[in-house]
Amino acid sequence: MTILFDLIIKHFLSNYKIQTGSSCLKDFPSNLDEEGVPQNEVKRIASLIVQYSVRTFSPHFHNQLYAGTDIYGLAGAWLTEALNTSQYTYEVAPVFTLLEREIIKRSLELVGYPALPEADGLLAPGGSMSNMYGIVLARYKRFPEIKTKGMSVVPPLAIFTSEDGHYSMTKGAHWLGIGTDNVYKIRVNELGQMDVDDLKEKIHQARNKGCEPFFVNATAGSTVLAAFDPIDKIADVCEEHDIWLHVDVSLRAISRRLLSDQNFTEIHYFLLFFMARVAWEVRYCCRISIATPDALKFWLMWKARGTAGLRKSVDIAMDCANYFYEQIKDRPDFRLVLPEYEGSNICFWYIPPSMQGQEENEEWKNKLNRIAPTIKEKLIKVGSLMIGYTPLPSKNMPNFFRMVVSCQPPPSHSSMDFVINNIVEHGCKL
Amino acid sequence: MTILFDLIIKHFLSNYKIQTGSSCLKDFPSNLDEEGVPQNEVKRIASLIVQYSVRTFSPHFHNQLYAGTDIYGLAGAWLTEALNTSQYTYEVAPVFTLLEREIIKRSLELVGYPALPEADGLLAPGGSMSNMYGIVLARYKRFPEIKTKGMSVVPPLAIFTSEDGHYSMTKGAHWLGIGTDNVYKIRVNELGQMDVDDLKEKIHQARNKGCEPFFVNATAGSTVLAAFDPIDKIADVCEEHDIWLHVDVSLRAISRRLLSDQNFTEIHYFLLFFMARVAWEVRYCCRISIATPDALKFWLMWKARGTAGLRKSVDIAMDCANYFYEQIKDRPDFRLVLPEYEGSNICFWYIPPSMQGQEENEEWKNKLNRIAPTIKEKLIKVGSLMIGYTPLPSKNMPNFFRMVVSCQPPPSHSSMDFVINNIVEHGCKL
Repeated sequence: MTILFDLIIKHFLSNYKIQTGSSCLKDFPSNLDEEGVPQNEVKRIASLIVQYSVRTFSPHFHNQLYAGTDIYGLAGAWLTEALNTSQYTYEVAPVFTLLEREIIKRSLELVGYPALPEADGLLAPGGSMSNMYGIVLARYKRFPEIKTKGMSVVPPLAIFTSEDGHYSMTKGAHWLGIGTDNVYKIRVNELGQMDVDDLKEKIHQARNKGCEPFFVNATAGSTVLAAFDPIDKIADVCEEHDIWLHVDVSLRAISRRLLSDQNFTEIHYFLLFFMARVAWEVRYCCRISIATPDALKFWLMWKARGTAGLRKSVDIAMDCANYFYEQIKDRPDFRLVLPEYEGSNICFWYIPPSMQGQEENEEWKNKLNRIAPTIKEKLIKVGSLMIGYTPLPSKNMPNFFRMVVSCQPPPSHSSMDFVINNIVEHGCKL
Repeated sequence: MTILFDLIIKHFLSNYKIQTGSSCLKDFPSNLDEEGVPQNEVKRIASLIVQYSVRTFSPHFHNQLYAGTDIYGLAGAWLTEALNTSQYTYEVAPVFTLLEREIIKRSLELVGYPALPEADGLLAPGGSMSNMYGIVLARYKRFPEIKTKGMSVVPPLAIFTSEDGHYSMTKGAHWLGIGTDNVYKIRVNELGQMDVDDLKEKIHQARNKGCEPFFVNATAGSTVLAAFDPIDKIADVCEEHDIWLHVDVSLRAISRRLLSDQNFTEIHYFLLFFMARVAWEVRYCCRISIATPDALKFWLMWKARGTAGLRKSVDIAMDCANYFYEQIKDRPDFRLVLPEYEGSNICFWYIPPSMQGQEENEEWKNKLNRIAPTIKEKLIKVGSLMIGYTPLPSKNMPNFFRMVVSCQPPPSHSSMDFVINNIVEHGCKL
């Protein structure tokens, strides 16, 4: 174990490239055999695993969906693994249970909910599960008989989510027996936010088809554009129609002051780290937990950094995202996908000099569609930077870069410049 | 981090009591505050967490549901946490993806399934999820239209499971919109195995009520008694009625030669460690994954120990379970719950001398019901041994001990004697 520890430390301090390229993997001894391997072969393999893995903790890793490792979070995770306990009973996990309650208690305060036990919470291991918890709770509140009788005793149910909402809504509708056809995708405006008039219209349509609208999913930080749905207005519609409002707080949706000043930011930040969303509506809990994530890594980070420390990290990330935005917004070789940004996700195209000042017809768009993938491929080969791209077919938008500014490792203006310079360096001759 | 590492090593080598008692926890600084805490306070807290946690890696920890830490598994887990990647794309997790495929490939071989891609598998983070995967797959195969249209377009569906089956069947029926009333609990015989005649009868009953039987859950190692349902006979019934057969391979169900000689044992063993069951039926996969557990800890243990090493661990555990059984079966102060055992779970009552040779009426049973809890409480206070107990209300059985013999740390005849001696020591005066 000492050797493993040295390896990991070396890994953290190393200047390895972000990715070494998967072609090396053909020599990786992945085969599992009748006989085991000796200690020094385990050592060599552990070293190879480190070498061939993507360095997600690099300051230049900006690929989608997560940030780097927090050192306290890692310490908590290691302790959790070594102690090898489970949170299903207080008996075997007294400390862990205590810490989980503290996280829920403080989180309820942060979002302005009533205290335990009037309100409650659950830690979920990921977005799909967490959105499913929300649907199960809403369904139980509206039709408690479904728990015992199943869905054949109620009319078809309808779910509403924006066309840019997370795919787990559809997956959840399949799992939970609601049906993907009964997920109504609501139009978004040019900023990627749910169109409330279209929501009203679709509720009407669903009713006309004999469906029972029971669940609206509002997104606070959509998957691609990090857009915030107009939650206040959606809440009015939900109240009028007696529909459960679920807010899907996405992983990169940091720093929006949504519920009360300064408060919601921290929640977002935590989510950013742990890929865990909290089903706030669990106050109507009906014994639905299907997995028990461990609270310690989350708790230890919060304890060590304090709410103030976490808030500061978010402020730094937001300042850097804003700096990045300011640097590219007036350049001829960069073009923003949205005119403004509320989160720390900046989406943009790089337009090489050879493509500037031309008619932007289909051929031009097809060419632009290849620019981000080509630059990304070069960057990965060099290993200097990792950044995601995606098209937005619903808006007929060719591939654009999605720059994710996260809190760990702490970004800086110079790490933002590094991204811009690297893209220009590998794209300017295209 | 070095300090943390020292702590954990100390923890592994320590002779701490198994549990220190939760009363100490009142001083634990669980509060999360505006300000963080300095490094040496983090150190002190980490130390307290270790001190107050149950030592699940002790050779005398026999509480329900899991075994001790495997050192290679732990190394894999630490690496996984440090590398902080996710298996959702090959791009960010090339090595992990490769290892996951190898685990699935080899596991398919072990259970005698066709090779990839004709058959396929999924790693699941726990039993509830894994049983739900099975139900979703079975439902999709029988009524693919449920995916898009929901369950309102089909008749009520019926699930069959033994009365000793895992509670996640009921939970899954709630989640998936089937309804807990549509879970038919099949009687078990005196060995805790599903009664196939009652299964046939209940299928008939469900049809008469207008339900569509689509899913039978056979249990290979039931939660309390580690009983094995008669899978061959159940399979015949399922074939006749065109019902999907799902086998729930429970965590402690090691060493039964179920499908082909020597093969099934390993699978059980892996499950024992990782609380992950594999949805074998995923060959009919319909893009249902809702969480991505990490494969590395599983893979590294298998790689280091080899299939032969794992098989040997199972043999040692089974030998010790058998030794334990032999030691207590003829003693007047021990009484077995079942006359024979197929797994490594031995259930028994301790009958103190003061209760022997008496009429076993209700009053006697009520007294016996308090024996196991009283002994357990004493053992926890002393910190020498941790062992679970449970009643079996369906059979009107008072609380009995459930001795779980697991593979890690390797058990021995002397660690078995230790359990017997400790129970006698703390129970003989009752």
